[in-house]
Formats: sequence, C-alpha cells, structure tokens
Amino acid sequence: MENIFDDTYFMKKALQEAEVAFNKGEIPVGAVIVIDNKIIARAHNLTETLTDVTAHAEMQAITAAANYLGGKYLKKCTLYVTLEPCQMCGGALYWSQISNIVYGARDEQRGCINLNTKLHPKTVVKGGVMAEEAAQLMRRFFVEKRNLN
Amino acid sequence: MENIFDDTYFMKKALQEAEVAFNKGEIPVGAVIVIDNKIIARAHNLTETLTDVTAHAEMQAITAAANYLGGKYLKKCTLYVTLEPCQMCGGALYWSQISNIVYGARDEQRGCINLNTKLHPKTVVKGGVMAEEAAQLMRRFFVEKRNLN
Repeated sequence: MENIFDDTYFMKKALQEAEVAFNKGEIPVGAVIVIDNKIIARAHNLTETLTDVTAHAEMQAITAAANYLGGKYLKKCTLYVTLEPCQMCGGALYWSQISNIVYGARDEQRGCINLNTKLHPKTVVKGGVMAEEAAQLMRRFFVEKRNLN
Repeated sequence: MENIFDDTYFMKKALQEAEVAFNKGEIPVGAVIVIDNKIIARAHNLTETLTDVTAHAEMQAITAAANYLGGKYLKKCTLYVTLEPCQMCGGALYWSQISNIVYGARDEQRGCINLNTKLHPKTVVKGGVMAEEAAQLMRRFFVEKRNLN
C-alpha cells in the first residue's frame, strides 16, 4: 500500500496554514511539526496580528510542539515550513535539536542558509518541497498589498 | 547633576532579572528594554519553567516591549542583557530594528558575534558592561548544578 504520509502530504498542511495567514493579511508562511506521521503543531505567521516580530510560524510551532510533548527538545520531529526559516527561527531550531527541517521556497535574502545560521549537527535539512506553490502565494500577497497601498 | 541612568544602572536591573532566573534553577540570563530612560520590559530566561527553548530573556523582553509600545518595531529602544544574545535572539533583534544592544558577558560559543548573526544595520552593539558580574553568576550556576547532579 502506498504511504500517503510523504513530504508533500505534510507540506500541503503547512500551505493551508500559510493560506490562513494570507487571509488575515499576514505574510503567508505556515508550518506544521510532525512526529511519527502525526501533526502535533500547526501555526502560521502572526507578526501583524500580535504586533510581535517573534511570532513567526516556526516559533509558534516549536512552542506548541514542546508543549504537546512535555519536553523542550524536538529530537524525533520534522518541521514542515512553506518558506526557508530566518536566522531567528533557525536559531530556535538549533536549540530544539529538531531532527528534520523540510522547507518549501528559498529565502535568498533573509533565509538561514545564505546567512549561515548554525543548525544542530544532527538536523537534516531538505528544501524545495512544493516550492512553487509557496512562492506563488508569497508573490500574490505582495502584489495585492502593493495594489492596496 | 550626575545622570544616574547610565549603562551600569540598567545593566544592574538586567542582573536582578538574571538572579531571579538563578533562583528558579534557570540558566541565569536577564534583560530589560529601555526607552527614554524608562524600563518598558523586564524578563529572565524561562526555558526550563516553560519547557520552551524559545523562552530566552531577550525574546520575552522583545514581545513585552512591543506590547507596551503598541508597535512591533523597537527603533528607539535599548536592550540590556547580561549575556551576549544567541542567534535566535540576534535574529529577533534584527527584525525588531532595535537601536541599541548592550550586553554583559561574551558568549564565545553560542553568541551571535562569533556566529555572524546579521543584525539590523542601524543597531549599535556595546559589550562588556558588568561582564564580570554576569559571568560570575553563570559560573556559580553551573558549579552548583554540577554539585547537585
């Protein structure tokens, strides 16, 4: 039997979160954290709603997943996030010792890869999963925002 | 008349927060955020208490200060923190566009300076304010922790 719980399956869930952010007027980034094929945290960017630069999707997902697990380390978890994490989120993921990070679109300017953010040596990173869908949502957001101003 | 509101004055307040953390069994790091000589946020490390790697003193202070100001940017603010910020906190401070960061002790291993975390181009950083007091508190914490285990 085919395993439906692949990277695309979970990235679609993260994209759904990004769409929720979009509909709130937030930069559309969504994230889920998964352990043993089970989603234990869902979050989307809320920096405008909460007036808080720290309210990125990943940060909220890390907090929620640790709360669910009752421990602060996310050693057997995978984060799915629609956009490559920034330095702040990369730094938080370093502390969390998360096993896997799967992101959608690259963020050449502010993403942790080009900024050389140090991740935990045991963390495996994979990019480009549904990248076009994630990037398209971002582009649509900024086009609409420009037209409104 | 002498201005009592110098860096040492505010770093002492951050050290008081670090001591609160110490007494809770938390790695003793404290922070305050100041605008126009007024403290608008006080926080200390709560990663153990909250079971949350994101609960560094600086992160909480950034959230609290933005909440106080009613805006997410901390453009005219100064952060006083007893230990050099890590990548996560440095990344959050980048987003906050904070004017000044004043830290106490260096963190050679995990601090944002040696890890080359990108700060906002307008952020001015000053280190070494009451560094010995901050470092001493850290050392005392790790010695006591070792003796307890």
